[in-house]
Amino acid sequence: MTSWGCTSVEGGLGERAVARCDQLGVPPFSERADQLTRRYLTPAHAASLEALRRWMREAGMSVRCDGAANLVGRYEGLAAGAPALLIGSHIDTVRAAGRYDGALGVLLGIDCVDALSRARRRLPFAVEVIAFGDEEGSRFPTSMTCSRAVAGTVDPGLLAMRDADGLNLDEARAAFAEPLGPIAAAARAPGDVLAYLEAHIEQGPVLEARGLPVGVVTAIAAQKRLRLTITGVAGHAGTTPMSLRRDPGPAAAEAILLIERICGGSEDLVGTVGRIEARPGAYNVIPGSVEFTIDIRAPISSARDVALESILAGVEAIVARRGLGLSIELVQDLPESPSDPALTAMLEAAVRSTGVAPLRLASGAAHDAMVMAALCPTAMLFIRCKAGVSHNPAESVDPADAAVAARAMLAFIDALADTPAGAPRRSA
Amino acid sequence: MTSWGCTSVEGGLGERAVARCDQLGVPPFSERADQLTRRYLTPAHAASLEALRRWMREAGMSVRCDGAANLVGRYEGLAAGAPALLIGSHIDTVRAAGRYDGALGVLLGIDCVDALSRARRRLPFAVEVIAFGDEEGSRFPTSMTCSRAVAGTVDPGLLAMRDADGLNLDEARAAFAEPLGPIAAAARAPGDVLAYLEAHIEQGPVLEARGLPVGVVTAIAAQKRLRLTITGVAGHAGTTPMSLRRDPGPAAAEAILLIERICGGSEDLVGTVGRIEARPGAYNVIPGSVEFTIDIRAPISSARDVALESILAGVEAIVARRGLGLSIELVQDLPESPSDPALTAMLEAAVRSTGVAPLRLASGAAHDAMVMAALCPTAMLFIRCKAGVSHNPAESVDPADAAVAARAMLAFIDALADTPAGAPRRSA
Repeated sequence: MTSWGCTSVEGGLGERAVARCDQLGVPPFSERADQLTRRYLTPAHAASLEALRRWMREAGMSVRCDGAANLVGRYEGLAAGAPALLIGSHIDTVRAAGRYDGALGVLLGIDCVDALSRARRRLPFAVEVIAFGDEEGSRFPTSMTCSRAVAGTVDPGLLAMRDADGLNLDEARAAFAEPLGPIAAAARAPGDVLAYLEAHIEQGPVLEARGLPVGVVTAIAAQKRLRLTITGVAGHAGTTPMSLRRDPGPAAAEAILLIERICGGSEDLVGTVGRIEARPGAYNVIPGSVEFTIDIRAPISSARDVALESILAGVEAIVARRGLGLSIELVQDLPESPSDPALTAMLEAAVRSTGVAPLRLASGAAHDAMVMAALCPTAMLFIRCKAGVSHNPAESVDPADAAVAARAMLAFIDALADTPAGAPRRSA
Repeated sequence: MTSWGCTSVEGGLGERAVARCDQLGVPPFSERADQLTRRYLTPAHAASLEALRRWMREAGMSVRCDGAANLVGRYEGLAAGAPALLIGSHIDTVRAAGRYDGALGVLLGIDCVDALSRARRRLPFAVEVIAFGDEEGSRFPTSMTCSRAVAGTVDPGLLAMRDADGLNLDEARAAFAEPLGPIAAAARAPGDVLAYLEAHIEQGPVLEARGLPVGVVTAIAAQKRLRLTITGVAGHAGTTPMSLRRDPGPAAAEAILLIERICGGSEDLVGTVGRIEARPGAYNVIPGSVEFTIDIRAPISSARDVALESILAGVEAIVARRGLGLSIELVQDLPESPSDPALTAMLEAAVRSTGVAPLRLASGAAHDAMVMAALCPTAMLFIRCKAGVSHNPAESVDPADAAVAARAMLAFIDALADTPAGAPRRSA
């Protein structure tokens, strides 16, 4: 086992990654001064890639930006052109985000390569750090567009989706600060990729409850995203008697309470209405339609789908009783995604080598790792965050926990380098 | 009683007013091609004033635009500078509006003056037609800014209100197509104004149910507008267990159902949630706050206020039970507004003179007349609209009904001219 250090003046290994997340928390790396919002293909995204490019180069990597605006830094192995271990996460954020969701995993990857580079250590494989441009789906309706591009699983229908300003993906790409090649060229050949490792804040309360700085992810929960539109009849708020109204608002309200009740009835189920809009949207107009979203997750697809069926049947009954219309659009369907067992065991051992008991836990949040599993074996490390709070400016990570994560990641890299032929087999 | 005619090739008296509303229903008189939206101080508003200016001039009026962007056409009486009968309504619309709400009253006023002018008839008073720029409040949070400016009752706080783009009233005025003087200069001296007459579509089902083309408004209902914000804790949609959430969405849903239940319990009460927004507003983020509006109306203020107190007490109980925060902002408070009894009797006789039984009815909708009542005695004529539908592209008016309205308005003008000294006393 190699002993790793980080002598940078900016902080120790892992701690510097936290500090850099903080640096990226304000303009120009955020679209807004009052909150961190860094959506895909915005100027704030481009500014962040400039900073990452510099840090990747300082860590000894060659850097390129692919057709999906993913920034990829490569640290060659003993032989040039060797297959790569990819270490990645996403650099985009939700609106009013925390600073560590996504970015910390990218910056821990850079810290790891920096440590390899300072030790002048070359491995039987290349190490690439990748900053995915869109994991959150905060600009376009579908998430994880960018890891899909790398895994070669982009649905052509994605290219037609539009942001709130009506721009489609190609129009947003054309407006990006640097020229981007075709999205299709971002896809990696399976033979070029050894494995995918992602470090990410837990975004939940389990590690804190157990008093552990990191944990090993066994699987990512199944999720679906839907958009529902209930249509009624718009009218004048002052002249239409209550009894003659066909107002979709109270129907949507009943639906929201139904979702809360059904998902609240099972410990493993979560259901969220994150967006709601009444149209046309004026004080004095009874809405003609109300649109809202559902995000529903469970550890396994079947449990999620049984609950969703109950919800949709309930909503259909509500709108039928009220004489309204309903349209349901399935926006995203991600099945549960287990991590690779052999890599996960290796990551477990790596965590143990740092003196931390390796807790195995499932992820309620989706991550790029679940998309990358289509390309190569994946493993995922969780880092404790304060009170489990995420997607919130109050998100907080102890730099000491990030330092443990970085040491575990380097131990994992060590173990991978010691694997015969340096290449894990897909063991699932 | 004078016999009136309208020989225009564009249609008979009143019918032409309907045809002109249709002309104003599309760009450049609408902000959008797919729906009629003409908000205050937009280019679509400016384009409409250009058309109205031309029609006013053709009808023999001199035309000016006041500091609030109200277009005022004046047809002098026997003596120049005589006090004026104001005939008005609003030229702005809600989003996705019908074509007759507001505009028809302005265009009927122009038709009436055109008839006077063609008959070369001068009266003991001037007749002015006024197109108010903002009645709906579809751009700024408060409505009827423009009639308030004329009545001299603008609250200085109104000047600080901002539209969805963050512009305040002065900034929007400065960006208007034509230079505008100070708002304060739009105020009229009570001695210069004899009375205010407004014709408006009913926006409700009563006239249609009674088989009557027009009706006489006795009073306008009391209304309040409020903005409520329920605050919770934003969080990750995948990792926050249902039991640990402090999601303001279901609380807002309970509030919406409470409003429906309380207002549905009284025949005279109407309550509407026209806008709702969850923030930050993403599929995968539990909202940190939900903002929604309440518009509540009743024939008398006390009934409205009793219901509103129940609603707000209920919402406070909901947010307390769920451990959430609540802020309540009163955006607008309009007491009930009775029409002037003497003028209303005169309008009733005018309706009867057209061969129509003069039904008296109250207005659930607010109108500029209720603001103008602070300046002078007011009367108001309702015109039947199809199925009572308004604030909706399906709004429809039979041109024959508009013709009856125009004849009744001219009979009202006749009666006013026959009043001793040509000036009604405020009789309330």
